[in-house]
Amino acid sequence: MSSLNNKVSHTVALGDGRRASNGMDTFIKRITMEAGKAVLKRFGKDGVHYSKSKHAYDVVTKADLLSEKMIISAILKKYPAHSILSEEEGEINAGSDYRWIIDPIDGTMNFASSVPLFGVMVCLAHRNTVKLSAIYLPVTDELFFAEADKGAYLNGKRIHCSTTKKLDASSGCGFVGSRKRTLNFVKKLLGVIRGEQLFLNSFGCISMNSCYVACGRKDWAVSLYGEIHDFAPTYLILKEAGCTVTNCKGEPWKMGDNEAVAANPPLHLQLLKLTKGV
Amino acid sequence: MSSLNNKVSHTVALGDGRRASNGMDTFIKRITMEAGKAVLKRFGKDGVHYSKSKHAYDVVTKADLLSEKMIISAILKKYPAHSILSEEEGEINAGSDYRWIIDPIDGTMNFASSVPLFGVMVCLAHRNTVKLSAIYLPVTDELFFAEADKGAYLNGKRIHCSTTKKLDASSGCGFVGSRKRTLNFVKKLLGVIRGEQLFLNSFGCISMNSCYVACGRKDWAVSLYGEIHDFAPTYLILKEAGCTVTNCKGEPWKMGDNEAVAANPPLHLQLLKLTKGV
Repeated sequence: MSSLNNKVSHTVALGDGRRASNGMDTFIKRITMEAGKAVLKRFGKDGVHYSKSKHAYDVVTKADLLSEKMIISAILKKYPAHSILSEEEGEINAGSDYRWIIDPIDGTMNFASSVPLFGVMVCLAHRNTVKLSAIYLPVTDELFFAEADKGAYLNGKRIHCSTTKKLDASSGCGFVGSRKRTLNFVKKLLGVIRGEQLFLNSFGCISMNSCYVACGRKDWAVSLYGEIHDFAPTYLILKEAGCTVTNCKGEPWKMGDNEAVAANPPLHLQLLKLTKGV
Repeated sequence: MSSLNNKVSHTVALGDGRRASNGMDTFIKRITMEAGKAVLKRFGKDGVHYSKSKHAYDVVTKADLLSEKMIISAILKKYPAHSILSEEEGEINAGSDYRWIIDPIDGTMNFASSVPLFGVMVCLAHRNTVKLSAIYLPVTDELFFAEADKGAYLNGKRIHCSTTKKLDASSGCGFVGSRKRTLNFVKKLLGVIRGEQLFLNSFGCISMNSCYVACGRKDWAVSLYGEIHDFAPTYLILKEAGCTVTNCKGEPWKMGDNEAVAANPPLHLQLLKLTKGV
């Protein structure tokens, strides 16, 4: 434990029955929603500010930077000793046991092209275990929240993943494109499915995929590319909604896994057969 | 020409330079937007009212029926002799040369499960040729409109399809699922693509796919299943935005084709190689 961390004494849910009694749950919800509402005000106005790589989805808008600034400022003010890892800004205050992980806009490519599929994600990890997570989908004014061992919620109501059992008749979420592992997975999936009842949405937005699976709108999500800010916040929402969340090999998802397979347990088993080795 | 039709004398654009001078353009935009705004008010509230088939997407909500009623009432009041073909209601006043084709909610499965991807579509055909079309995407308050030979517009501004030339680096829209022709197409597509720059969105909403291609947000759309109310309204918006729109064999899209391949000319040629025979 770092010396920085010794100075703080927040009781975020630690799996021992204590709650985030000092208002961390309220705080994370508030900052995520506030940033999301600011982002929404810029929707349809912001184009791409700059590109981070050759990939079309790897872009940044002014709204990403605004959202990030709002969230980081709020955390630094209230929890100055905590570590922060944010998509654009990188690492701040490295070394604390408490680490906030931020995706200021997930689905930036959609946002920048006026496609209403994007979210703002913030989570708090304690010693690399995610304890609190908030995802706000501004267009539909939906706030998804989870606290470790305390369940997942949509606008304050408890949510659960679907009970669909057959992959052949399920509705999944994933990215469809020509990156190698995606190709492998989609080809395998389309090769084994029998019947005409499978649907695969490709929204281009991991926050939306995950929240939709968590509340049972969709049955499963497979994400083969991404970074810590994509997976840490979505992991806890999915897990607390009853999903099994693993890497492609089937090991429980942990910080550092840049892939995730999430579904209710019977569907998850069927998906794992397809994701192993992709 | 039916006797009913002889009673009306509207000058909808007939390709001879005459405009819809009697306000049909204003009328179609108004009724489409009004229905869309009514639909939006019910978004997040309406579940599935009934199912039309075993397919999960083949559902009807109370909002579909409300939207349909609003649009049909308005048409019957203003153009009582015209034919109307609507998704849920079927054919009304069959036999007129003028025929309104209505999809009261396109993307009902999304709408019913609180996914913000749906549209309201109305078009007017004269002797089986689409002359006017309006598509309203309520969530983003976007009205797409086209008049034959007069261009396509988004909220009053002229729009054009993208100029992307390489399918390998394009962003497409299509439905991904396990219906046979879809499987064939997606497998062929993923088999020929080189590099990691292809993206395929599967929004589950043909109105959105088509409008996004028409305004250049996405590069192409392939739709292999659907009905006249899916294709007639989207066809004109796409064509007037500069797309080539054909059936899978490459013949110009015509009323009765329940499939469509749409893109700028060079991309369209590349897509046709994949859609022939699926």
